[in-house]
Amino acid sequence: MGRVRVAGFSVSLDGFGAGPEQSLENPLGKRGPELHRWWVGTKTFRSMFGQAGGTQGVDDDYGRRSMEGFGAFILGRNMFGPVRGEWPDESWRGWWGDNPPYHAPTFILTHHPRAPIAMQGGTTFHFVTDGIDAALERARAAAGDLDVKIGGGVSTVRQYLQGGLLDELHLAVSPVMLGRGEALFEGLDLPALGYRVTETAPSELATHILLSR
Amino acid sequence: MGRVRVAGFSVSLDGFGAGPEQSLENPLGKRGPELHRWWVGTKTFRSMFGQAGGTQGVDDDYGRRSMEGFGAFILGRNMFGPVRGEWPDESWRGWWGDNPPYHAPTFILTHHPRAPIAMQGGTTFHFVTDGIDAALERARAAAGDLDVKIGGGVSTVRQYLQGGLLDELHLAVSPVMLGRGEALFEGLDLPALGYRVTETAPSELATHILLSR
Repeated sequence: MGRVRVAGFSVSLDGFGAGPEQSLENPLGKRGPELHRWWVGTKTFRSMFGQAGGTQGVDDDYGRRSMEGFGAFILGRNMFGPVRGEWPDESWRGWWGDNPPYHAPTFILTHHPRAPIAMQGGTTFHFVTDGIDAALERARAAAGDLDVKIGGGVSTVRQYLQGGLLDELHLAVSPVMLGRGEALFEGLDLPALGYRVTETAPSELATHILLSR
Repeated sequence: MGRVRVAGFSVSLDGFGAGPEQSLENPLGKRGPELHRWWVGTKTFRSMFGQAGGTQGVDDDYGRRSMEGFGAFILGRNMFGPVRGEWPDESWRGWWGDNPPYHAPTFILTHHPRAPIAMQGGTTFHFVTDGIDAALERARAAAGDLDVKIGGGVSTVRQYLQGGLLDELHLAVSPVMLGRGEALFEGLDLPALGYRVTETAPSELATHILLSR
């Protein structure tokens, strides 16, 4: 059976996984994009958008690993879009256009039911209303021998951590102080939850940390 | 006039500047020493104890900078020792033996008065009972054109940050998850307090960050 992993998850020096005041204009929150500088310049990232060039090395290696080997994804609803409460209609289909970067079944945690959406490129969005355990069960079944990626956001990652359901986290700690935002670690005792730092690799743009148990 | 700086201050990935359960046996708290691995192997650190050898490079450069240019120091009382409440007698003279590593006037924040202690090597411990502003005023006067170093611990650094009294912080973010301990950033919005990241340099053992305003 595959593992359950968080990968390529960026956090600020002061522990925020997204900036404050997320909105349609600022899907990562204010100053959120600063967390992802290590990633957007890499060869792997650029190739996802059909662009040549980009950096190779530590950031690209971890970026590529954060995209490989997954057979299903789980996302919190706020990762999927800015809509809150009941779905007013079927028009919102994610931030990513017609061909989202998942290319696999992708389970969206929500309190509000909605029919699945088959996108181009193999991504199908399924809306799961019966909680994180049910979503993981469905994702594992869909992934088969491949891993399940918990794609975020912060609240979703925290719930899977607290539930003891994650095998591994790759964090990219960016040299940025946000001051406000969504705190990833607050009130969580990761060593007590069984996690140890098993790999670290610095680059100029982030320090990559692997937590495993 | 000199500046007011924090330098060589180690924090964990999850934002703790010291481990939990500080005691005579664990002055840095449990697992606290793991925060300082970047420092104890350096040439600068070793030379402070008359030892040859040690690493050179990023960690040593920042370590040396964190020791240079200071004409006075301010420490919280728990940095000075494990004694709490009234001083039972004059026997506790700090963690550092007869020749402490300060070599300059060093002001200890406490609620309990005590006569100054002149140590070997130029360090004199002064006990300040009228607050952080008074301590800074005395330290500035003692330092002259040199800088004042806020030596810690976490609570003392937070108080000077919140008071808008620090010009610069050098943090060494160590690739360690503590889970519990003394949180440096919690509830502090450093960008709102005027701080920006002005320098970053990674090593295998820490990511060095300079915050200035």
